[in-house]
Amino acid sequence: MITEHHLHSPIQPPRRTLMGPGPSDVSPSVLSAMASPTVGHLDPYFLQIMDEVQDMLRTIFHTTNELTLAVSGTGSAGMEACVVNLLEPGDKIVVCTNGVFGGRMADVASRIGAEVVQIERPFGEVFSVEEVAEVVKKEKPKVVGIVHAETSTGAAQSLKEISEVVHETDALLLVDCVTSLGGMPVKIDEWNVDAAYSGTQKCLSCPPGLAPVTFSSRALAAMDARKTKVSSWYLDMSMVRAYWGGSRAYHHTAPINMNFALHQALRLVLDEGMENRFSRHYANHCALKAGLQAMGIQFAVADDHQLPMLNAVKIPDGIDDATIRGQLLNWFGIEIGGGLGPMKGKTWRIGLMGESSQSSHVLLFLAALDQCLLHAGYQLTPGAGVAAANDFYRTTITD
Amino acid sequence: MITEHHLHSPIQPPRRTLMGPGPSDVSPSVLSAMASPTVGHLDPYFLQIMDEVQDMLRTIFHTTNELTLAVSGTGSAGMEACVVNLLEPGDKIVVCTNGVFGGRMADVASRIGAEVVQIERPFGEVFSVEEVAEVVKKEKPKVVGIVHAETSTGAAQSLKEISEVVHETDALLLVDCVTSLGGMPVKIDEWNVDAAYSGTQKCLSCPPGLAPVTFSSRALAAMDARKTKVSSWYLDMSMVRAYWGGSRAYHHTAPINMNFALHQALRLVLDEGMENRFSRHYANHCALKAGLQAMGIQFAVADDHQLPMLNAVKIPDGIDDATIRGQLLNWFGIEIGGGLGPMKGKTWRIGLMGESSQSSHVLLFLAALDQCLLHAGYQLTPGAGVAAANDFYRTTITD
Repeated sequence: MITEHHLHSPIQPPRRTLMGPGPSDVSPSVLSAMASPTVGHLDPYFLQIMDEVQDMLRTIFHTTNELTLAVSGTGSAGMEACVVNLLEPGDKIVVCTNGVFGGRMADVASRIGAEVVQIERPFGEVFSVEEVAEVVKKEKPKVVGIVHAETSTGAAQSLKEISEVVHETDALLLVDCVTSLGGMPVKIDEWNVDAAYSGTQKCLSCPPGLAPVTFSSRALAAMDARKTKVSSWYLDMSMVRAYWGGSRAYHHTAPINMNFALHQALRLVLDEGMENRFSRHYANHCALKAGLQAMGIQFAVADDHQLPMLNAVKIPDGIDDATIRGQLLNWFGIEIGGGLGPMKGKTWRIGLMGESSQSSHVLLFLAALDQCLLHAGYQLTPGAGVAAANDFYRTTITD
Repeated sequence: MITEHHLHSPIQPPRRTLMGPGPSDVSPSVLSAMASPTVGHLDPYFLQIMDEVQDMLRTIFHTTNELTLAVSGTGSAGMEACVVNLLEPGDKIVVCTNGVFGGRMADVASRIGAEVVQIERPFGEVFSVEEVAEVVKKEKPKVVGIVHAETSTGAAQSLKEISEVVHETDALLLVDCVTSLGGMPVKIDEWNVDAAYSGTQKCLSCPPGLAPVTFSSRALAAMDARKTKVSSWYLDMSMVRAYWGGSRAYHHTAPINMNFALHQALRLVLDEGMENRFSRHYANHCALKAGLQAMGIQFAVADDHQLPMLNAVKIPDGIDDATIRGQLLNWFGIEIGGGLGPMKGKTWRIGLMGESSQSSHVLLFLAALDQCLLHAGYQLTPGAGVAAANDFYRTTITD
């Protein structure tokens, strides 16, 4: 405990280039919107901002779902909001687990007394339509949960056909879009997704603190048919939606300034145009990949399901994970992520999310990694990574 | 749904003077800290900021409790964090309910299968030591929950003697300090409080989005002795404390910039000095009261348990609640709060919290209310409220 007269120093963060699994770099205009003067949570101006946030989230989720809003917590609170509102004790959920976040969804569901059936794939792999069809037919769950973009592994899961087999039964499809939203197509209505959650600090490039969610009319009907109250008061959508919707009934005090930030972040997404944004994410992923391959570094995920915004690569033999990440941070201010779960010490996770998906970030990272690897005695042709990435840019980018 | 090419206008909030039940006015230095560049949630710099936030929260809570931190949600998430970590299904909690927030605590507890016993006092009243002693002796609960500063009614609850009778049994004392922390003494250790939660947007004058909490070693022991997992994954303190504590194990991505804001808000509290801050809150409350009484407006709470930071007053007969609040907002940019629950339409809640507890706010509000009431045909001597408040300041404030 400090005394009153020994104050800590004011906030003055070091300069960082955020290329981990989130948070990503935040635009100065988003930081500036966040620093606008606070108004009341029932102020007519704030109610208008809530409407506009919902409106923009619907566009970005590609949905007309009325119940689309930002939960007042980080991405994991969005996950919990979806799970605890859709499930009652004794309800069955099938969770497709191929990484940390599928496992987390199963944990959240089990805590409220749901019956959890997990099907598993090794970290880095994805699920086939057939295996999901089989378990759904056998288990007849109320909800099937799956992760679109596994932040822990860098794997992209196709959803459209899985949604079809899920909906051959009465089940609801719940999708984790934390890392995909804003960086690759997330088509809630076209894919017939019943509930989805995301986070603000990945491809939306807003600081962490809010969790966009959306619920279909079928999900709404299931929630309206509940026999028990939602286990969480804070995340009970029957009350949260009254605040965000027509009646404006006070529930909790929303994080006003965080919503200001999200509003500006969503404006930037729409101003860029989503197709442009997705192309940018894909191009920088390809450039990074070309560079890494030229340095002899391999992806931990097969070519056909690599995420553009989260590049999981194998740490070369003989190279120490923590040493290199520490040097990237301390020498160059670059943050990348280590592996989670069974991938700890075995992979690096290089994020190219939102504002961090830039050719300048790709080149800087490759140049810095070059230096760190040479320092560690790794055999590579100095500059080969940067040269390969520049080759890619030169042949694909036009003014 | 909007198309990509019709952007909403950028964030540009109207100028407000926040004198409702929270959020309160936020210092520019807090907004500026919040707008500092985002760093990673495991960045050494952010880990240091987390330590410093904990350190300053301990000072402000008057505690040495190790488990003292900011939950990643608003005040109600702090309430839920305390309730769901302390209670398992079947555990008994006595909730002392004399307003909306006691009622909320009972609701939160009942949702996770706790046995809830409520004792009630009418809105605006407080509990005697004797009635708490009686119910505790009879019910032998695991937890007794009570609200220190009822934001819905403006009533201040004494805690020290109640804590003594609670601790004559094995019960744990859980206290809602959402509105009191930073504006009046909250002495966790001296009063032997086992768990407490607060919010950032009241007397700490930080935007909403975090919930300071603290747990005693007895509360920790009770949590360690749980037989079941905490119902909420997001709020499970056994994992949250590993992230805030020594192991730094990743749990969720903390709202980085919100913590920057809280850090600066706490620095301002300590820089002012807590005793000075409490005196300031009390003086402005007295000035407001003198002014309102001169205008013939009475408090809704008895003299001996009025909160300094939340002044609940009776709306005069024949005066329409919404009309006056609308005029205060639209003519003068002043936000005050209406009544909640049974007090809806009957009381106004005038906040003088943190940065909003200023003589200039008191005088502006009295002058503006004067105008609105005269416009409504209310009988009063124009300027009487301002004159009485100025009298108070003149006789008590020295340079």
